[in-house]
Amino acid sequence: MISSPQPDGQSSTSLPPAPPLAPSSRSQVPAFQVMTILGQVAELRAAGADVVSLCAGEPGGGAPAGVSARAAELHASGRALNYTPTLGIEELRTAIAGHYARWYGVDVDPARVAVTTGSSGAFMAGFLAAFNPGDRVAMARPGYAAYRNILAALGCQVVEIDAGPAVRFQPTPALLEEAESTHGPLAGLILASPNNPTGTMATRAEMAVLATWCRERGVRLVSDEIYHGITYGSSDGIGGAATADAVDASDGNDADGAAAAPGDRADVERGVCAWEYSTEAMVISSFSKYWGMPGWRIGWMLMPEDLAPAIGGLSGSVSLCPPAPAQYAAVEAFSDESYAACDAQVAGFARARALVLKNQDRLGWADAAPADGAFYFWAKPGEAMLARYGTSTVYCEALLERAHVALTPGTDFDTAHGEDYVRLSFAAGYDAVAEAIERIVAFQRG
Amino acid sequence: MISSPQPDGQSSTSLPPAPPLAPSSRSQVPAFQVMTILGQVAELRAAGADVVSLCAGEPGGGAPAGVSARAAELHASGRALNYTPTLGIEELRTAIAGHYARWYGVDVDPARVAVTTGSSGAFMAGFLAAFNPGDRVAMARPGYAAYRNILAALGCQVVEIDAGPAVRFQPTPALLEEAESTHGPLAGLILASPNNPTGTMATRAEMAVLATWCRERGVRLVSDEIYHGITYGSSDGIGGAATADAVDASDGNDADGAAAAPGDRADVERGVCAWEYSTEAMVISSFSKYWGMPGWRIGWMLMPEDLAPAIGGLSGSVSLCPPAPAQYAAVEAFSDESYAACDAQVAGFARARALVLKNQDRLGWADAAPADGAFYFWAKPGEAMLARYGTSTVYCEALLERAHVALTPGTDFDTAHGEDYVRLSFAAGYDAVAEAIERIVAFQRG
Repeated sequence: MISSPQPDGQSSTSLPPAPPLAPSSRSQVPAFQVMTILGQVAELRAAGADVVSLCAGEPGGGAPAGVSARAAELHASGRALNYTPTLGIEELRTAIAGHYARWYGVDVDPARVAVTTGSSGAFMAGFLAAFNPGDRVAMARPGYAAYRNILAALGCQVVEIDAGPAVRFQPTPALLEEAESTHGPLAGLILASPNNPTGTMATRAEMAVLATWCRERGVRLVSDEIYHGITYGSSDGIGGAATADAVDASDGNDADGAAAAPGDRADVERGVCAWEYSTEAMVISSFSKYWGMPGWRIGWMLMPEDLAPAIGGLSGSVSLCPPAPAQYAAVEAFSDESYAACDAQVAGFARARALVLKNQDRLGWADAAPADGAFYFWAKPGEAMLARYGTSTVYCEALLERAHVALTPGTDFDTAHGEDYVRLSFAAGYDAVAEAIERIVAFQRG
Repeated sequence: MISSPQPDGQSSTSLPPAPPLAPSSRSQVPAFQVMTILGQVAELRAAGADVVSLCAGEPGGGAPAGVSARAAELHASGRALNYTPTLGIEELRTAIAGHYARWYGVDVDPARVAVTTGSSGAFMAGFLAAFNPGDRVAMARPGYAAYRNILAALGCQVVEIDAGPAVRFQPTPALLEEAESTHGPLAGLILASPNNPTGTMATRAEMAVLATWCRERGVRLVSDEIYHGITYGSSDGIGGAATADAVDASDGNDADGAAAAPGDRADVERGVCAWEYSTEAMVISSFSKYWGMPGWRIGWMLMPEDLAPAIGGLSGSVSLCPPAPAQYAAVEAFSDESYAACDAQVAGFARARALVLKNQDRLGWADAAPADGAFYFWAKPGEAMLARYGTSTVYCEALLERAHVALTPGTDFDTAHGEDYVRLSFAAGYDAVAEAIERIVAFQRG
């Protein structure tokens, strides 16, 4: 027992009034709106509303059957699920390394694979390991809000690169050099291809140029490849798991998406992996998108050699380990059957995407980004809607409240022009998108 | 396509050599040794070795049957597991709030419960929300390494309070005031009761005094209550789920532990909850210990009102949400059957604990902490062993290599005197502990 504890109040008489407790200043980052809206969707559904949720990047079809079956079996056994090694079980690290041979022809040492708690866990550990407070890290605008928010909370200076349609929403050496002359030398660059929210992809040549640019300047490249495998083909030589046929089909419901055989990388492009050009890059990916497992919270990172000890050391304290059941189950994600199931899901995204494109005029939406990959449609809701509601935030609030359709206002992705844009995720699939389009058209008419 | 990408090398001629890429200085925290050792255990087992792992706090019995069954059913349904609301599903937040009524008679608003990715996720979000870089945060030494490592990575100044047996390894107002006069005013205090690695608990009076001391000075109290419910009774009025009978039983295997009926808080003390004295405290807990679910990565935090918006906002970017399957399953953790199963596990810990205490002389270990709660035995491996191996780190390495018993050297918990101590976790249960003791005795003799 502690020696002579004081009854409460005793020692307070000589003290000045305590300063009021308050949140840290670094915690005052903007909320990631999509997560706030997901909370509202859950509340509406709990109250009995039939909500079509197209706000988040949530594939409608779920995990491959083999993955779910493995998880079910594991839990049915009642086996104690203890901590795994911090960077993941060997079997999964090896399977992930094998995935890089299969899709990219890249030889990855399993010791350089860190299994993480979603790509979120990879960003936290990776940013902590690579960047000090005050470091400047560039990212394209529009871009994924969580990069900006995590970096800001960790004291880094986020340098937003205004990357519009002229550069297909991706950073270029010229834009980066312009940013350096304004803000000072960069410590890092986040490249997202396919990009969220615009869906654009870096070509092979562009990845080569950016990786070289970073290496020559000592800038850490962080390559977010979470949407790899979800690609639709395009006119500039980037292939896709789902061919252009599905995209152009006049009735998306009938198109079969013609998913290419897994492993057939001669014919399709799943995306360009940064490690094809520089193993000094951090490559970040996840089971959340192509494999349809967002709620499982499991992803990974390819660790540059110099960062691996820091990432391993930090992760041991920051996360202990990624979720164990998801790790054991995810080993099944790399079977031929699982790849085939995922490609079939991508074909479904292609049908939903085609439906959105076909209905663009009915929606009255404008300035849409190309959506070469990922499953987002980034566009202006149109002059009439912006005139009626003022901002995309108010437009989205009204749409959710009155038509029970959840979209995400552009403010999550573009701190400058976001109030003019919305992001529609077509990951929920054709039927959900078809229903949402009819509701949106009726809402806009009303 | 990016306009005119440069072939690689073009722009480099006028550049000075790039600075070599390097890890951030903030990432240079010591590794959490227990996680490193867990990795070694996994490697040894993969190579066919029969390792008894008493290094980590991993209950041998696993989750309550109802929790595992719910998870199995969920995965067998093949249902898509998408993101949940950032702070967790309502059903689980409500169930956790109910747990505070059941065990402590504390009325908790479910809106103040944040479900997190293990207690690790709660520490990261909570520390970011409460503390700025440079803030001084106190913790007892010996104490849990991850507090120190996360705080250091986030730029906080960790103030270690030398808390030895005279104060039962817990901070006191006098020690805190001494620390403030040396280092300057504190922004936070981490209190762990039961403590890891010593197992000591704050009494009701001590918690009241510390909560008052913090409130009067504007110091944020962070109360780590992850070991609540795993208590063994003691001579100073702290009760326990397992009675002293089990502890004193000469043959632990026969003692039934006499676990008290769940909900019967008049008779037992599960630990003192900080919110009984101050809702300005962050209370952090988890399903990892009492419920036996460390690998599931699910825990929670009670959020002080002023921090709730910051924690919600940050978590939306930092983690998106905790693992969904674990959330749905964990709702079953609060059934009468689950509490009964957990109390039976605690009775098992009590038998294993009694066995360690009984064999203390055979082991030759000294200066053991009381282990009133949690499932750790913190002691010096004895003069002879320290003379032979020099440090507990070398002792533990030799023990793992030659006897295939994994303990944790004290360096994880005590930066000053850790090389004199080891931590043995008896969470794996009676049989594992019995086998380990025989191996350790033989190893020390050899």
